[in-house]
Formats: sequence, structure tokens, C-alpha cells
Amino acid sequence: MTVKEAYDKLIEEMRDTFILENVENMIEWDFETYMPTGGGKQRSKEFALLAGLVHDLYTSPTVGKLIKGLKSNPEYQALSFIEKRNVHLIEREYNNRTRLPKDLVEKIAEQSAISIQAWKKAKEKKDYSIFKPELDKTLALSKEKAHYLAPEKDPFDALLDEFEPSFTSEMIDKLFTELREGLIPIIKKCQSSSKQPDMSLINRNCSIDIQRKISEDVSRLVLYDLDRGRIDETEHPFTNGYYDDVRITTHYYENNFASSFYSVMHEAGHAIYEQNLDKQFIYQALGKSSSYGIHESQSRLIENLIGKSPEFWEHYLPKFKEITGDIFSDVDMDAFIHAINEVKPSKIRIEADEVTYSLHVIIRFEIEKDLLSGKITTEELPSVWNTKYKDYLGVDIENDSEGVMQDTHWASGLFGYFPSYALGNIYNGQMLNVIKKDLSYDDLIRKGDLKPIIDWLIEKVHKQSNLYDPLELIKKISGEEVNPKYFIAYLEEKFSKIYEY
Amino acid sequence: MTVKEAYDKLIEEMRDTFILENVENMIEWDFETYMPTGGGKQRSKEFALLAGLVHDLYTSPTVGKLIKGLKSNPEYQALSFIEKRNVHLIEREYNNRTRLPKDLVEKIAEQSAISIQAWKKAKEKKDYSIFKPELDKTLALSKEKAHYLAPEKDPFDALLDEFEPSFTSEMIDKLFTELREGLIPIIKKCQSSSKQPDMSLINRNCSIDIQRKISEDVSRLVLYDLDRGRIDETEHPFTNGYYDDVRITTHYYENNFASSFYSVMHEAGHAIYEQNLDKQFIYQALGKSSSYGIHESQSRLIENLIGKSPEFWEHYLPKFKEITGDIFSDVDMDAFIHAINEVKPSKIRIEADEVTYSLHVIIRFEIEKDLLSGKITTEELPSVWNTKYKDYLGVDIENDSEGVMQDTHWASGLFGYFPSYALGNIYNGQMLNVIKKDLSYDDLIRKGDLKPIIDWLIEKVHKQSNLYDPLELIKKISGEEVNPKYFIAYLEEKFSKIYEY
Repeated sequence: MTVKEAYDKLIEEMRDTFILENVENMIEWDFETYMPTGGGKQRSKEFALLAGLVHDLYTSPTVGKLIKGLKSNPEYQALSFIEKRNVHLIEREYNNRTRLPKDLVEKIAEQSAISIQAWKKAKEKKDYSIFKPELDKTLALSKEKAHYLAPEKDPFDALLDEFEPSFTSEMIDKLFTELREGLIPIIKKCQSSSKQPDMSLINRNCSIDIQRKISEDVSRLVLYDLDRGRIDETEHPFTNGYYDDVRITTHYYENNFASSFYSVMHEAGHAIYEQNLDKQFIYQALGKSSSYGIHESQSRLIENLIGKSPEFWEHYLPKFKEITGDIFSDVDMDAFIHAINEVKPSKIRIEADEVTYSLHVIIRFEIEKDLLSGKITTEELPSVWNTKYKDYLGVDIENDSEGVMQDTHWASGLFGYFPSYALGNIYNGQMLNVIKKDLSYDDLIRKGDLKPIIDWLIEKVHKQSNLYDPLELIKKISGEEVNPKYFIAYLEEKFSKIYEY
Repeated sequence: MTVKEAYDKLIEEMRDTFILENVENMIEWDFETYMPTGGGKQRSKEFALLAGLVHDLYTSPTVGKLIKGLKSNPEYQALSFIEKRNVHLIEREYNNRTRLPKDLVEKIAEQSAISIQAWKKAKEKKDYSIFKPELDKTLALSKEKAHYLAPEKDPFDALLDEFEPSFTSEMIDKLFTELREGLIPIIKKCQSSSKQPDMSLINRNCSIDIQRKISEDVSRLVLYDLDRGRIDETEHPFTNGYYDDVRITTHYYENNFASSFYSVMHEAGHAIYEQNLDKQFIYQALGKSSSYGIHESQSRLIENLIGKSPEFWEHYLPKFKEITGDIFSDVDMDAFIHAINEVKPSKIRIEADEVTYSLHVIIRFEIEKDLLSGKITTEELPSVWNTKYKDYLGVDIENDSEGVMQDTHWASGLFGYFPSYALGNIYNGQMLNVIKKDLSYDDLIRKGDLKPIIDWLIEKVHKQSNLYDPLELIKKISGEEVNPKYFIAYLEEKFSKIYEY
């Protein structure tokens, strides 16, 4: 077998893995959208079985042998960069996953479905005690996983790798400290400015039918292909899919159009990433995004950098007024833009403004590290949460549904995920800096001509698929190491104008 | 290993098979309901992979060895009836499926998704030529499957076994001849009666919102548990699911409430069967229905025997008038019941009345036998179809979308399925005869108290799960062999009153 033949065999051998992961995605989508409540137990068995089957495929002895054969083949270096990257990604997964016992993988998948259902019920009843016993199980399984993955590492670092490869919590700590130090003065200046927004301009009743029309319109504007996607409604918005079937969800509130508007922009930002992965990599290890943080950079770039910019509303407000009839017909452009960009510490992460948002993420990052290391228990979790919200954001949490139970991640066992959200901000600050050099960015947005910007993202990010780890990709795009200063500078420039400080 | 231990091991070994079949069901449900059009190709790969994995599980050497060990164990007869039936069912599937090459199973699954998408497009454009090339492939694969299953048999008979075990096309021929001979005189008497229905009483505009309310109401009436189910909308109504997650679909037409009304009753009849399978058999071979024909007996019993009876409307018409506001407020009970029960040869099977319905099925049965044996080609198919519709039902087919392309079964490769529909009628005629002896059937329906009737069905049919093949089950319930005379007698009695002939 030549090295090329061995490579082709490995790629072919892995193919089913990615097809089966799509099936996993699909039943997860259904679990979150349309599954009747009674179906939870059956679904948890399905999750466990699929997780086990996917595990078998990733860790099959055939795959192991092919990797070993390839890496020890003297011709290995003759493979192209792309081919070697593919092998590297397959090997990384193989090495990580072979460390995990299959029954642990199955248990984690099954428990995740059970914990999510307990979390939903607990959140609805504002009763953390319903969620706690299941969270305990999920947390214990996550610790076990971390130990198997890297017994020598801090458990948080062991888990982080799945979301943000080649990062450590120390690096994140450093980035987040710099980020926080940049954000606090901006928050203070906005809060003490004499110019404050009139929120009554956006908190107006807007029927869900009208909001659905807006969702479709704005999806099209950012080139989210609805023939290969769809928009559904869930408690928590999310994106799920692969290439030609990438779906988003949103949540409509009659008196808060902005919530769904920005959920749709955010999720559409994720969706266009998946829809525009390089087609040649479908069903290959390369046919994925670079990392969760890079994914967030795309969603938050569409949502905030574009969607909350004054230029965007210069283009879109007339269209928005047209779709919404007389609801917003009287609003003034500048006042509307200010209301959209209100900076105000709040309780709920996904409703937070651009400036305070990262503080929510920092709180979660600090807590999940301590949860995993055992420094804090699930018993203490709500009070730790509430104290940090008071300290960092100055808000009082009145019940755990608007506190520690607001997000689904820990129920799902996704410890290590949260930093990605703030890393996304840091990344997109760096990207914006380059886009603005390459394109007449503001003008294009002002004209509502987003295609050149989306094409830039497709070229520089989406089509790169998983050719580079996030730190490499950011360096390739910006010519620099990861650096929060661009994001902070972006906020400073934007909000000093809006708040006139 | 004792015989009991070997049995337990076999049951445990098979468990994942049924869990994975649920996953298959789920992505099939999604394929028919919410999948974006662009997702078809990816989905076809998922179908193929899952079909192959399910095939592997059914035919695993471990399963083969366990069956062999059990059957040759001198203690085998000491197993209970239930245990032996479980082993028998597993063995039957093992034997059938080991005859099929895995790659054929995968190809059939993949082609099915492709053919269904071609069929949808062709039907929309009323252009059979779009469908024909894919139908050719599906037909060729079905013939290949039949040959592998039983090379000595007529291909139709080889395929029939999956839907109606222990039946032959000769038996069906005989039953259908008797059925047809019983139906024709009733149709003629209805048509020549001077009392004809006023169809304007039911063909009134009724908003889809109102129809949705009716769907939920009538679902509850027949004890379809919506906490373990849901109602969605598709071109063609269907039921899909297992125990605690059994979903139905319907199609609403504003000017024809009856279409959706009876689709919902029909599908709810299927759904309550699945929801009430004996819980102890979940994830076992026994945890399924007896056959497709028995399934149809349940759906058609709810839809027609109950839902189209004068007694049902005596109870339900006031409630129906209440939900529909003033749309039907003026209609007279008897005239309404007659309109609901109009007997009129028509083009579309799923819209057909109780009397002419089986003729639609007989046409399909005759055609699919000839298609599989090669007596007719897919080229000739539309003209053969149209000629038979003229001969048997006296109707002219104007385009293939209301002709040969009205049903999805052949696109899905479900050759051998159609007879089940008419067998369902024959079975439920026999069941009705017994129910009427056991319960005050008419009175219960007149009071809208369907629980005792549904409980009877649960006890006699649903909870029996797959303990008996259809012919055994019918004998156990009715004390007789399968016999169309009860269904014909039921129609004769009902329609002679309604049409006053």
C-alpha cells in the first residue's frame, strides 16, 4: 500500500463516523425542538447507543493501525499539507477518545438527556433542588472524563481542549484579565454619561407573526440559505447541522423584538459557517469548524459587529419599519440605535449588551474551574453565582432560574465551553480590524450589501474548515497572536460615539 | 449457561437493534416533516448507514450462535410461550436478513430517499417522467431483494412476508375476490338509490386553526396521548414512533375538514396501538405490532367503524358545532351523517369511502404483483393504472399525480404493503362482530364514552404486541379463520340504512 493509498483508506474508513455524527445531531435537534415530553427516556437510550457507536468508529483498531502505518511510513512527509492535517485531526480524536472507556461515553450521553430534562423542569419551577441531583451526576461524569483524558492536568484544562484546542486555562485567565480591565472603564463611562437611551423605543409590542417575517428577511440579508436550513422556536436559541442541512432556532417575545432579532442574526452567523465549510471536506475530519471560539466569532460578528452597528440600522430601519407596519413608524434613527446599544449590567447572558457580555462569560469560566476542581460544591453553586453577579455586574439575582439555571451548558455536561463565547469576541475584534482594511466595510453595511463581507468571512474563515487550530487561524488572518485590544478598541470607538462620553 | 441465561443474553444482545431502529424512525419522521429540501442527499447517506448498522445487529454472528445454542438446548421447551415467541421472532428476522447482502440493504435505504424526493417533485409537476427513472431503480432493488429472500417464490410473495407474515398472494387473491364480490352490489345499490347525500353540508370552508383544535379534541376522544405524541402536517398523513414517542401527521384542506378529520382518527388509531404495546416488551422483538394488516385494522376501526358511524356523530356533532362556530350550525344530523358516508367511486385512495376503498387496494395489489414479475413495465404503468381505474371504479384519471403517483409506497420501495389496507378492513369486520357481543358498543359511542372500546382494543390487540402472527391473532380474537363476510355484512347493514335501499 502506497502512502496515498493508506491515506485514502483512512479517509474512507472514517467517513461513516461523520455521517453517524449527523444522525446524532439530528436527534439532538429533535430533542430540543419537537420531541414530546414523554419521549425523554427513550431518547436518552438513543443518545447513549449512538455515542457508543460513534466512539467505536473513532477508536476502531483499523483506524489506529492505519494512523500508525501512515505516520511510520517514510513517504509520510510527501503527503500534502491538507492530507497531513486530516491525519493529524483523526489522530488527535483517536488518541483522546481511546483514553475514554466506552461505557463512560454512553453514560455521559444518557445522563445529559436526563439532566437537561431535569434542568428544564427546575427552571420552569424556579427550583434548583430539582436540578441539583442530576447536575451532581453530570459533574461527576465530567470529572471522570477529565481524569481519563489527562490525569496530570487540571480537570478544566483537560476538558477545554475539546472546545478550544491548544488553549490552557492560564492563557484564558490572562486574556480575560486584559479583557475585563478594558471593559470596566467603558461600562463606567457609558453608565455615567448624561446621554442615556429611551428604551421605550424598542420595547414595543410586536406580534410573533411579524417577527417571523423579520427573521426570514434578516436571514436572507446575511445569506443564510433557508433551502438548506430552517428556523424553529425553542426556549434557548441554537444552531445544529452540517453543510446542506443547518438549522437554527429562536425565541420570540412579543414585547421584545430585539431578543429574537439578535438570536436569529447570531445563529445565522453560526449557520453560514457550517453551510460554507469547504465541500471537498464533507465527511472528513477537515469538514468542521476550527473551534467553538472561532464559531462564536462568526455568530457574534454577524449579531453585534454588523447587526448592532449604526450603519446597519441606517440601511435596515426603513425596511424594518415597512415590515412592522406602524409599530415603529415614529422612531428616530439615532435614538433607536442608542436603545439597541444600551449598555446596562443585567442578569441574563444571552440578553446582555456587547460591553457587559464578556463579564457574564468570565463569571462562568471562574465558577466552572472551581466546580471541576472541587473548590466549590453544587450546594454552594447558587450562592457563589449570586455573589459574583453582585460583585462583577452589580445585579441582584432573585431566583435561580434567572441565575445559575439560565444556561443549559452544564446540564449538557459542556464544561469548558463558556470561554469560547468571550474568545469569539476577542477573535472577531481582530478580524474586524482586517476586514476594515480589505473592504469599504461601513459603506457596504450602510448600503445593505453584506455579500462582500460574508464572502470575506467565507474565504478567510468558513472555507478554511478545520485546516487550522484557532490560534493559527487568527494569526493567519490577522498576522498577530490572539489579542483582546482590538475588540476593546472597537467597543471604545463605538460606544464613545453612541454615549457621547 | 442455562437455557434461561442464554435466552436473557439473546434478549440483551438484541436490545440495541430496537433502539437503533427508533433512531431510523426518527430521522425518517424528520425527512417527511421538517427536513429542508437541500438536506436530501445527506439524509440518504444517513439512511444507508443506519440500515447497514441495523442489518449488522440483526445478523450478528453472536445472535446466530445464541439462537442456534438455544434451539439445540434440550431444555429449550422449558422456556415459556412468551420466551419461545421472542426467540422465534428473532430467528425469523435473523434468517430473512442474513439472506440479504449488507450493501443491498444500504442501497435500498439510500435509493428510497432519492426516489421519494423525485416522486415529490414529479407529483408536484404532474410529470411521471421525473419519477420513472428512480422508480426503475427502486423496483430493480426490490426485485433483487425478493430474489435473495426467496428465489423459489414469486417476488411479490417473497416481499409480502415482511408486511403480513404467513400470507401468500394466492390467499390474498381469494380473500380479495370474495371482498370485491361483496362490495360491488353495495356500491351499485348506493349509486342507484334515490336518496343521495347533499355534499354541500360538509364541503364548507373551515379555517385550519379551527381544524387544528378539532384534531386535538378528537385525538383526546380516542385516547391518543399527546404527552407521548404530537400532530404535524405533511402532504401525506402517517404515523411514526414507538411506545412513549408516537407521532402522527395530517393534511389540512380549508374546504374539506373531513379529509384531515379522518386522517387524524386513522393515524391516532395507529398511534394508540404503538403507545399501548406491552411495556414489558420494550426493546424486544415482541415489542411490535402483529402485522401491517392488524395495524390497519386498528386505524380503520377508529376512522370508519367508530368515526363514520351515525352513533359517533350523534355524540360529536354538537361538540363539533361548538368548536366550528357558525360554520355548520344549520346542518341536520341525518343529512350530515349521509354526507359523511357518501359512497362514490373516486380517484384518490385515502379520500375514498368505506365501500369503494378496498377496490383501490385491489388495483394496487394486482399491479404490484405484475410489476414485480415483469408482466408490466414502469413505462406501461400509468396506462395500466388508468385502465384499471376505469374498469373497476369507472373513473377517468386526468393526470398521473391523481393516478399512479398518488401514493408514496412504491417510491419508498414498499412493494407488498398495499394488501394490508384491505386486510385491515377484513380483520376489523371480524373484530367488530366480537366487540358488539362483549360491549354495548353502539350505546358507548352514542355517549362518546370510547374508553371501554379502546380498552377492549388494548387488551385484545395492542397489548398482545407481537405475540401472534395476524392469522393466529384473528383466530384468537374471533374464534374463526380470516373471513371477509363480517366486513361485508357490516357495510351492508350500515349503508342499506343510510341509503335506504
